[in-house]
Amino acid sequence: MAKGITTREEDYSRWYLDVIAAAKLADNAPVKGCMVIRPNGYAIWERMQAELDRMFKESGHVNAYFPLLIPESFLKKEAEHVAGFAPECAVVTHGGGKKLEEPLVVRPTSETIVWFMYHDWIQSYRDLPLLINQWANVVRWEMRTRLFLRTMEFLWQEGHTAHATYEEAEEETLLILGIYKKFAEEFMAMPVLTGLKTDKERFAGALRTYCIEAMMQDRRALQSGTSHFLGQNFSKVQGIKYLSREGREEFAWTTSWGLSTRMVGALIMTHGDDNGLVLPPRLAPQQVVILPIYRNDQESAPVLEYCRKLHREVTDQTYEGAPVRAQVDDRDVSRADKKWQHVKRGVPIIVEVGPRDIAGDTLMPKRRDAALREKKPAIPRGQFVAEVEDELAAMQHNLFERAFEHRKANTRSITKLDEFQAFFTPKNADKPEIHGGFAICHVVDGPETAEILTRHKVTIRCVPLADEKGIEEEIPG
Amino acid sequence: MAKGITTREEDYSRWYLDVIAAAKLADNAPVKGCMVIRPNGYAIWERMQAELDRMFKESGHVNAYFPLLIPESFLKKEAEHVAGFAPECAVVTHGGGKKLEEPLVVRPTSETIVWFMYHDWIQSYRDLPLLINQWANVVRWEMRTRLFLRTMEFLWQEGHTAHATYEEAEEETLLILGIYKKFAEEFMAMPVLTGLKTDKERFAGALRTYCIEAMMQDRRALQSGTSHFLGQNFSKVQGIKYLSREGREEFAWTTSWGLSTRMVGALIMTHGDDNGLVLPPRLAPQQVVILPIYRNDQESAPVLEYCRKLHREVTDQTYEGAPVRAQVDDRDVSRADKKWQHVKRGVPIIVEVGPRDIAGDTLMPKRRDAALREKKPAIPRGQFVAEVEDELAAMQHNLFERAFEHRKANTRSITKLDEFQAFFTPKNADKPEIHGGFAICHVVDGPETAEILTRHKVTIRCVPLADEKGIEEEIPG
Repeated sequence: MAKGITTREEDYSRWYLDVIAAAKLADNAPVKGCMVIRPNGYAIWERMQAELDRMFKESGHVNAYFPLLIPESFLKKEAEHVAGFAPECAVVTHGGGKKLEEPLVVRPTSETIVWFMYHDWIQSYRDLPLLINQWANVVRWEMRTRLFLRTMEFLWQEGHTAHATYEEAEEETLLILGIYKKFAEEFMAMPVLTGLKTDKERFAGALRTYCIEAMMQDRRALQSGTSHFLGQNFSKVQGIKYLSREGREEFAWTTSWGLSTRMVGALIMTHGDDNGLVLPPRLAPQQVVILPIYRNDQESAPVLEYCRKLHREVTDQTYEGAPVRAQVDDRDVSRADKKWQHVKRGVPIIVEVGPRDIAGDTLMPKRRDAALREKKPAIPRGQFVAEVEDELAAMQHNLFERAFEHRKANTRSITKLDEFQAFFTPKNADKPEIHGGFAICHVVDGPETAEILTRHKVTIRCVPLADEKGIEEEIPG
Repeated sequence: MAKGITTREEDYSRWYLDVIAAAKLADNAPVKGCMVIRPNGYAIWERMQAELDRMFKESGHVNAYFPLLIPESFLKKEAEHVAGFAPECAVVTHGGGKKLEEPLVVRPTSETIVWFMYHDWIQSYRDLPLLINQWANVVRWEMRTRLFLRTMEFLWQEGHTAHATYEEAEEETLLILGIYKKFAEEFMAMPVLTGLKTDKERFAGALRTYCIEAMMQDRRALQSGTSHFLGQNFSKVQGIKYLSREGREEFAWTTSWGLSTRMVGALIMTHGDDNGLVLPPRLAPQQVVILPIYRNDQESAPVLEYCRKLHREVTDQTYEGAPVRAQVDDRDVSRADKKWQHVKRGVPIIVEVGPRDIAGDTLMPKRRDAALREKKPAIPRGQFVAEVEDELAAMQHNLFERAFEHRKANTRSITKLDEFQAFFTPKNADKPEIHGGFAICHVVDGPETAEILTRHKVTIRCVPLADEKGIEEEIPG
């Protein structure tokens, strides 16, 4: 196979890793479980960061930076938190050539250090709400890792907010959940369900954990962002009190929330196809790539000139209020290799330009979400430039619809146990990992349920929120 | 002292820390030597990042992310490099509850891991130049730390590039040096000298280290960014070879370069005054702050309405091609406290608006670089809005000029030893730390020179580049 990507049908897990390699998104690092995010992958993360950061700031949040190294004793202050994170920690025992008096933990998450600082920063109701986010790396000692989805070190944003009342803190938790959903659906074109985690899956130390859950192409769920209502757990442990407007000492109500480079994995598994990555236009670092085609030096000058003029006209167009991101790829690489590189990295629109196209003043753009061999008539050059915005918008819409239809086709409301068991019994004995999809069920928490779930390799993802009524409509008649 | 800042005259070191505390830029972290960058400080770093990132991308660089944890053995591959960094490392010996087979080092800089990866990424001349930057945190075990200037963990960008020829790599090193100088002078309004470090001060493993050096208000130099020409040192150690256009195997020529959160410290010490931080308008997260003034509820509605309208008109103006960044501060905080907060954090233009200003339709804006008690006549409201851009530009220019004049007044060309010794003899025995300034001298490397330098607490900063002729002109008659 010239393009070097296993098909999804053949081996879905292998396909995922092949797409990452083919699109040059990431590599395994020499330390087991760690990854190197290559420029193509990092450009996607930068686009995600920019969009989320804009949404956070528009809703009143500011960024800060808390230190990487945390005294080991800090993690032990909150009982559930230590039980949840201590076994996953990387521990620094030596520094500057000497053994340390107290070991330092590389942050697995920053709650303990953040609340330690907030203790001094919060004195009065005037200091609230405190709405801080941080973009950072964290380390969790994972045994079974997978590029982007679960790595020992990953990049994320973690928000930590403090509020005067229960209601305000819960409102914040849900505000962020809404931002995550909007980001996933409108920016990444990835439909998600919002819901509440069960007690077992709650964040260590939280009262309630809300999440967004997406269905991947193998019909499995991927948890893609979490927003935790921490109540007063951390503020009581750290003594975070404020003087209320009425002059009373009160403990603050707090939240935390995070979204990570795992989203790059979600992106691959939501939109990717057997030719590689497929990028939703809003997210794509390059939206249009122009490939000049020529056989010799005589042809090259007019072709390059035409391409550069086309590039200027395309980048004079806007999509979503910003200039279209386009590139002329005039590298000294063969035509086929160059084209495949851009297909594999998911560029939304690729257009090849050769002497014949120039002579006819027509172009044959290729949209990445169209079938590879689909033939469309050539369009006049002027029409292409004018329609770039529409084509990008149509592709963004189409990717969401396609993913939404996939989820709808694989979600079922189930009220009977035998129906449940049938739904989760693999149709193909050779591929026991291919599941039924999402089942909307009533569940009784207990050992019998646990046994059924384990037997069918099914996990409880969330209790959908009341306004997620949409999922009912998705259930096939 | 109401504002809580020691004067520079009284105690310069103390003043520096007081400004950081008063402007809420950073706090000491519980782990000695580490810092927490608070929202006001981080907003400045974000502005620096955005500007540098834009300059890097415009010159063809892309971002990536390399892992935090590096096998200890990696650091030992390059002899000078290990000697330079090993004693400064934080070492992870335990992970996931177990002792590791090989300890991991928290990156003090990323050369070793970057070049390990480049080994696979670089095969042919077509893969060159490889122009990668990373924004990351690094840890160096420092004994004597100081917020922003020298901390155990700091944030920075580190560029790592590979080229086909000596000339291209050296050109890159100087290109980046030029970007650093432009960034410092045009964005931060901080004049810098560009030069070459002496062999003793070279980066561990580099052929040549170029730097930008700025003079702080205490007349001391601060190294503010470095660009290293690594030659083939790292590519030979890591075996980074490429197949040339002519089909020969060649070692790549490489560079690395970095600029860190130390720049926030440089900013404070270049422009700050006895009332706190002073922010150059191009860098300021908020360029204009509008403070509504009212004594009671009856006054508040029209004042707030007026302020919001003013805010809309101000943000409709542009400065440097982007909308003016302005804010109405209507928090429930006393008039004096609120004003002092914005003065201390360095906001370029503060304008108070009360019923009397509204009645007269005039405003009394206060530019942060003007003397505190300077009285200027009120100006018509319309004139203020129209002149915002000019005022911001004038302040940016004035800050650079002021810093440039300071450097000029304290730089001297010296050819005689007794003149040198006189220049560096403290004028005030009570303040032995107040030095002469920059001396442009010929130096003979040797024990005698070392003894003279040590005695006078003077360090060799750099050999100025040939095109830094400007420094000659700065020498007082």
